[in-house]
This record gives sequence, structure tokens and C-alpha cells, in this order.
Amino acid sequence: MEYLLEIEVRLPASMDNAERARLIEGERVRGRELAEQGVIRAIWRVPGRFANRAIWSAPDATVLHDAITSLPLWPYLDVVVTPLATHDLGQHCQGLPPGLAA
Amino acid sequence: MEYLLEIEVRLPASMDNAERARLIEGERVRGRELAEQGVIRAIWRVPGRFANRAIWSAPDATVLHDAITSLPLWPYLDVVVTPLATHDLGQHCQGLPPGLAA
Amino acid sequence: MEYLLEIEVRLPASMDNAERARLIEGERVRGRELAEQGVIRAIWRVPGRFANRAIWSAPDATVLHDAITSLPLWPYLDVVVTPLATHDLGQHCQGLPPGLAA
Amino acid sequence: MEYLLEIEVRLPASMDNAERARLIEGERVRGRELAEQGVIRAIWRVPGRFANRAIWSAPDATVLHDAITSLPLWPYLDVVVTPLATHDLGQHCQGLPPGLAA
Amino acid sequence: MEYLLEIEVRLPASMDNAERARLIEGERVRGRELAEQGVIRAIWRVPGRFANRAIWSAPDATVLHDAITSLPLWPYLDVVVTPLATHDLGQHCQGLPPGLAA
Amino acid sequence: MEYLLEIEVRLPASMDNAERARLIEGERVRGRELAEQGVIRAIWRVPGRFANRAIWSAPDATVLHDAITSLPLWPYLDVVVTPLATHDLGQHCQGLPPGLAA
Amino acid sequence: MEYLLEIEVRLPASMDNAERARLIEGERVRGRELAEQGVIRAIWRVPGRFANRAIWSAPDATVLHDAITSLPLWPYLDVVVTPLATHDLGQHCQGLPPGLAA
Amino acid sequence: MEYLLEIEVRLPASMDNAERARLIEGERVRGRELAEQGVIRAIWRVPGRFANRAIWSAPDATVLHDAITSLPLWPYLDVVVTPLATHDLGQHCQGLPPGLAA
Amino acid sequence: MEYLLEIEVRLPASMDNAERARLIEGERVRGRELAEQGVIRAIWRVPGRFANRAIWSAPDATVLHDAITSLPLWPYLDVVVTPLATHDLGQHCQGLPPGLAA
Amino acid sequence: MEYLLEIEVRLPASMDNAERARLIEGERVRGRELAEQGVIRAIWRVPGRFANRAIWSAPDATVLHDAITSLPLWPYLDVVVTPLATHDLGQHCQGLPPGLAA
Repeated sequence: MEYLLEIEVRLPASMDNAERARLIEGERVRGRELAEQGVIRAIWRVPGRFANRAIWSAPDATVLHDAITSLPLWPYLDVVVTPLATHDLGQHCQGLPPGLAA
Repeated sequence: MEYLLEIEVRLPASMDNAERARLIEGERVRGRELAEQGVIRAIWRVPGRFANRAIWSAPDATVLHDAITSLPLWPYLDVVVTPLATHDLGQHCQGLPPGLAA
Repeated sequence: MEYLLEIEVRLPASMDNAERARLIEGERVRGRELAEQGVIRAIWRVPGRFANRAIWSAPDATVLHDAITSLPLWPYLDVVVTPLATHDLGQHCQGLPPGLAA
Repeated sequence: MEYLLEIEVRLPASMDNAERARLIEGERVRGRELAEQGVIRAIWRVPGRFANRAIWSAPDATVLHDAITSLPLWPYLDVVVTPLATHDLGQHCQGLPPGLAA
Repeated sequence: MEYLLEIEVRLPASMDNAERARLIEGERVRGRELAEQGVIRAIWRVPGRFANRAIWSAPDATVLHDAITSLPLWPYLDVVVTPLATHDLGQHCQGLPPGLAA
Repeated sequence: MEYLLEIEVRLPASMDNAERARLIEGERVRGRELAEQGVIRAIWRVPGRFANRAIWSAPDATVLHDAITSLPLWPYLDVVVTPLATHDLGQHCQGLPPGLAA
Repeated sequence: MEYLLEIEVRLPASMDNAERARLIEGERVRGRELAEQGVIRAIWRVPGRFANRAIWSAPDATVLHDAITSLPLWPYLDVVVTPLATHDLGQHCQGLPPGLAA
Repeated sequence: MEYLLEIEVRLPASMDNAERARLIEGERVRGRELAEQGVIRAIWRVPGRFANRAIWSAPDATVLHDAITSLPLWPYLDVVVTPLATHDLGQHCQGLPPGLAA
Repeated sequence: MEYLLEIEVRLPASMDNAERARLIEGERVRGRELAEQGVIRAIWRVPGRFANRAIWSAPDATVLHDAITSLPLWPYLDVVVTPLATHDLGQHCQGLPPGLAA
Repeated sequence: MEYLLEIEVRLPASMDNAERARLIEGERVRGRELAEQGVIRAIWRVPGRFANRAIWSAPDATVLHDAITSLPLWPYLDVVVTPLATHDLGQHCQGLPPGLAA
């Protein structure tokens, strides 16, 4: 089952640079694992914001919650999840190759 | 360039059934064309609503506007467009095969 | 998997009484089927409103969408779905007997 | 009488880990008491958020207020309460066994 | 148990005058009954609006819902209910005599 | 003239306990004075929140403003004031005895 | 006592021109009376909207409500009233001569 | 040209009293200058809030911006500006003498 | 002085095609006059919506209001006006040639 | 392709003056580069706010995102981007000379 995730990152301005760099590097590593496992199927930046829109895939909401909260930045994320149902038109779509998903 | 589209369909309750069926059938045909042309890349229903979330692809906002307004249901659609930028993590995603996009 | 549904019913004031009665009776019948099948697990009225809050159960969002749109009143419903994940505390809860769900 | 509670937890990023752990452990203990007493009847996580949706039961709003404010995390909670009235369909529901409530 | 009710009246502009007068007269009669029974404890107009704010009293949300929906104007009302808990300061208040409640 | 006041208390989490206790004790004393003077006519807690709903009485908005800002907690209060006009139905209400206002 | 009024006029598109002209002429006449009586102290259009912002003066909210509802357009108005208290700086202001109020 | 200004003052709770007193005294002095120059034409408090509603006069938005940002409290102000056009009814208004503007 | 205008067009679905075509043609003619007179300086469509964003130029809000309300579609427009002040950076901008404004 | 940017600057009150001056000077330098490169085509202040509205030009959302995040103040900016499509009326507009853009 797929989900649309709208994520805003809210790092406090007072966080020191080393901690910030450490968290963002950890996020990159964990994000890559989730992408390679097929949990994060596609992801884009929202221009001008520290935010993303992404399509996640998980068998149910509990597994999804565990995946999201495994992100090192989670305490600083504002996450809105929309569950997605299939649409008849989808079978005619070409889908998103990883290149476009980038 | 990709765009996230959030579409709510607002057909008036007073519309007669024949007109409604004619519009929805035209929508299906035109939607299929846009999917096969790679304009609509992936699409899902929002459960419980006459609404969808979709990833569209168009070279710029003018071409995108022309594609959206070519939908027979357009006068009844409330469309919100979010432009999408690439995300570093995207290159590690598997993307969305048409099967998942359905 | 469970979902919280927030439903507002928006019947047009101009609907004639026979049509209204026919729709509401159909709703009662279909709602009862969904309850007896375990799809609608618990449901309450929001006092003062033609609205309800309910816990629905469905294997995924596509099955949920089909169940919701099978309601005769669906064209007049504003439905907001929140997917639900399990909570550690849940195993200590007594749950909701049908009597309380009423 | 039942109530739908929507709770968002807003722990300050600056809280030190020991205090955070102490509060969350206290919350678990008190939450379990309220569940075993039948005050919290069912509870779920909102995926991606430090938040829950729950069905509470209390004879009136004053007793409910005292139960909510007995939670150690209360100073950090944003709580929205919706009172619930019975719905005719409820008598046909199977209710929520503790297993599903989890 | 008391409740704060915020009610906005939304009569359609197209309603004919006789029907409007009939509904408003029926509302007055039923409202007076609810006031005299102690269900509506105090009520005020919101200046400039066809709206009121009122304190209602009912043993639970189901009885409250039945009282509100017994108003002839109910299909045209937008009702928001806030449940009320007692406040320590209340015992020092003079309360609202019917004269002020007017 | 009466006013509906919606007050949310927003004490910073970082306030030390002695200061918090001092402010809340001062609030209690001043609140009691305002209640005994008939300025605060009735007051209730909003269940689950550090918030109240109250009916205040003052000859005009300037006197009302001075009364509200005399509260020790005022720098931490978010106050929304709705002016109230009389309603015809009010003369049939029983009003709110201090017991119910509590 | 003064009030800030924010008024949006929502005439239905289906109203015939004669009725519209009759209502607007009646509004002009009644508005002029309220201005000359000192009830409407100053009034401006919001550019681009069928809306105004105005300063009204009335001894209390009940008199204000009666004045607003005496406008022929009242059934089509969305009115938001903010009560106003005096500000220390006001005594140094030049106020608004009718010329500027125009 | 006139403008309606809605100003909320958001002084941080952590500001020390001397700094607060200095800023508010500076605000009083600068506000009085702007009033005496006819830039602030009328001003009122919003009861219960550290906020005001005021009518400002400036030849254009650039001059207005410079006047607002000359206030010592500006870094702590949330300012919403509505431009105002003349209204036919204005010529029949008595305007606002400084006494009422207070 | 410049203004940012956000315009949403809300034509009723029930409007017959001839009337719709007549209004839109009149809008095109009047819009072209305002553009050629330098009142509308630049204008764009919001993709997917019957809406535009535009920069208008007018000596004051009254002249602006008269220009906007001279549009044949005005009764169906929802217009939000933001007044604009100059920005220091503006002198380094290349501005918008008519080609880009298209 | 053009974009409308709505930017609110949210510098923390606790930032020391030297850091604030350094950031704002860096912003001025980078902003001037973006203006001279034709990325920022026109920009205005929102009167009374530390905010601007601007027209940016970039071949796609990824280039736009990189340009925005190159601003030294970016960690403190709340940026909302609206993509812009061409409008038929645009060809009749005079566009915005740098003088007006200022």
C-alpha cells in the first residue's frame, strides 16, 4: 500500500553546526537504506523550503510509522500522511523511473 | 519537470445522470491519453473522496496548464499544483512501476 | 488495519422529502451490512451535527475506498480518513464492546 | 459517555534525555492505569507523528479533565476533545476487541 | 453537565417568506420549551450575525443531540459544541440571572 | 453588557516552578475578586486544555480590557473576546446559578 | 463605545437586476441615516471586493445588532464585529474628518 | 490614502523588564509623533490583547512602510495592512473626533 | 504605486454558454485596455486554476477599485489585493519585459 | 519559466546584532547578484512586514531551489512558491521596467 508523505524539517536555529551535520549525515544514510529497500519509492524537494514530498510503500500504518520514526531527524519533522488507493487510470501510466524520481 | 497535483472533483448534485456519465467517460478517455503520453506519470485515489493525488510531468507551467484544462471535468475541478525539485535521495529510489502507480 | 473516519453529511436543502427518505433508508441498510461484516467497527454521532466519527477496518486503502463509496449517501459526504497505527498502550485497553460503540 | 481525543505531544527539543525518559516512562505507567480502569478504551498512533487518537470514557467533562491532567506529559500535550453521542448503527457493530485497539 | 454551543443559522436566500416565517415561529416555540425545561440555560445573539452563543445543560451528549435536533431550524444550523468542565473559580461567581441571560 | 471570553493559557515550559506557583496563586486571588465583583459571571474549564470559557460583564470594552489585563497571568494569555447582544429567548431561560457556573 | 466592522456582501448571482437595484438603493438610504445619526462614524471600501471596513458607534451590542440588522442587505451580509477599547495614543490623534472618512 | 492596520505585539516572555520598559517608552514617544503628524489618524485597543486596530494615512505604501518600521517595537510586531478606498457613504459620516479616536 | 492582485474566477456551473462567452469576450477587451493603459503591468495564469496573479499600477486604492470593478467578470471574481512598497534590491532587477509578462 | 515568491523573514529576537548585520549584508550582496543575473526579475516589500513578494525566473524547480537556498538568510526564510503560466493578456502589458520593480 502506498502513502503520500508531506514532510517539513524544522531544525532549531540554535542547534550547533556539528550536531546539525551529524543529524543530516545520519538522515542521508538511513534515507538511502529506506530507498534501497523500496520503502521510499520516489521523493522530491519542495522548492524554497526544507521540505519534501514523497511516495512511501508499507504493508500497513504500523510498519510505516516504524520506518518514519527510524529517521534520525524524526524529532524535528512535521509529517502528514495521506493513504493512497489505486486509481483506474494508473494502469495506463508509465510510472516513475528512478531518474525522474530523483 | 514534475508537479504534485491535488485534485478535488466538485460535480454539482443537480447535474443529470446522462451529463455526468458523458463527462466522466470523456475524462477517462482524455486521462488515458495524458497517461500514455507520459504527462500523468502516476495517480492514486484519496480514499473516501472524489479526489486524486498525481505526479504530472511537463516542460513548464504553461504546457501543464494546457494539459490540465484539456480535461472535460476541468470546470468542476479544484486543482492545487506544487512544483517539484529533485532530491539527492531520489537516485537511490526504485521509482514507481506502472503496477504500483495503479 | 484501522482508520478513523470523520464524516459530515451535506444533503442539499432543496432535496425533496421522498428522495431524502429513500437515501437515508438505503444508508441504514448498507451501513448495517458494513457493521455486521466488521468493516465499521464502532460509530458515534457528533452532537448537534449531521456527522459521525467512526473506526473502520480494511486490509488497504483501495478496499476502504470501495466500502465508503458503496454508501448510497456517498455523493453527499465529506469524508476525511486518518490511517491508524497500533499504540503500545492498546494491549492494556478493554476495547469497545458493541454496547459502547452504539 | 465517550469522547474522541486527538492528542499531539510537543516535547521541547531542548529537554534533556533523562527528563524526557522519566516523563515518558511516567506516561506509560499512568496510561496503563487509565486503560485498565476503562477510562482509555482504545488508542492508536497517527503514523509519522508523536500523536494519538483515542476513545476515552468518563461520566462527565470534569472527571475527564482530571484524568487527562493526571498524565505526566500533560503540560506538553495539545488535546482536542470531541464529545460523542450514540449512533443507531452502533448496535450492529462488533466493537473493538483489545487486540484491534492495540 | 454544561456545553457551550456556537450556532450559525444558514437559511437559503431562495426560501419563500411564508416557509421562513413558519420555521422561525416554530423555532421560537421549541426554543422556549427548551429554556423553560432548563436545557438552554442562557443565550445571546452575536451582533451583526444570524447566530447565537448559548449554554446548554444535558446529562450526556446523546440527550444533547436529541434536544438540538428537535429544533425546527436544525437542517439549516451549523452547530459547534464544546463540552465544559467545572472551574474552581466558578464557586465564587454570581452566575447569570435570567435577566442577564436575555 | 456581556462578553464571551475564550482564554488559552500559554506558560513557557522553561518557567521555574516557584514563579509558576506564584503566578497561579496570584491569578486565583485576582480571579476571585473579579468573580465576587460580578465581572466574571460564569466560568468553565475546557476539558484537556489549560483554557477556559467564561461570561464577563463590563460597561464597555475599555473597562473590560482593564479587568482582563489586571490578571497576573495576562502576559501569557491568548484572549478572544466576542461581544454579546440580548436574545429574545433569554427571558425564558433560568440563567446560571453559581452552582452550575462552577 | 466603538466597533470595527468587516462586512462582505454576498449577493447571489441569480438575483434579478430589479431586485438587486431596489436592495442597493434601500441600503444607500438606510446607510445614510445611520451615518447622519452618528452610528456609522467612518467607512471605506476594500479595493477589488464588494466589502467595506467601518467604525460604528453604539452604546452596547444589542443596539449595534439592531442597527446592523436594519440594513436592507443584511440577509446577504457576512459581518464580523471587533469591540474597540480606547488607546492612550488616541488623544494625540487628529481623528478622521468626514472628508477622509469618505 | 488611508490604511487599516491590525497590529499584534509579541514581546518574548524572556525579555528583561528594563528592556521592555525602554522599548514601550520609546514606542509611546514615536507613536505620539506619528499621531501628531497625522500619520496615525485613529487607534484603539483590542480588548484582552496586546494589540491594536488603527487608521493610518500615507501617500503610498513605501512611506507607510518607513513609518511603521520607525516604531521601536517593530521587530516584535505582526502587522497586517489593508489598503482602503473611499466609500460613497463616507461623505455623510461625521468622522472621528480625537475624543472618539482615543 | 503597485499592487499584487490574486484573482480567482468563480463562474457558476449553471451559467449558459452564450452568457459565459459574452462575459469572457468583454473581459478580454476591457483587460486589454487596462494593460495598454499601464494599469495591468504584468499577468500570469495559476496552472490548473481559472485564476491569475498580476501586478497592477494605480495612484491610490480608489482608482484601483474603480479599475477592477470595470471588469465585466467582476461580480464573479474573488480579489485579494496586497499593496507593494519599493525594495532596495529592485533597482538592480531587470524588470519584466512584456514578453516575460505574457 | 517564472515563479511568484512570497517570503517572510523570521530572524530570532535573540540573534546578536553583529550576526544579524552580517547576515543582512550577505543577503544584500547575494540578492544583487541574483537580480543582475536575471533570476530575481522584480521585487517589492510588503508594507509593515519583514517580507517581500518577488517574480523569479528559472528554467526549472531544481535550479530555482538552488538559487533560493544560496541566500545567506535562507535558514530563516518561510518561502512559498507559486509556478506561473503565461496569460493571453500578457502580450498587451507594458511589463515592469526596473524603476517600477524597485
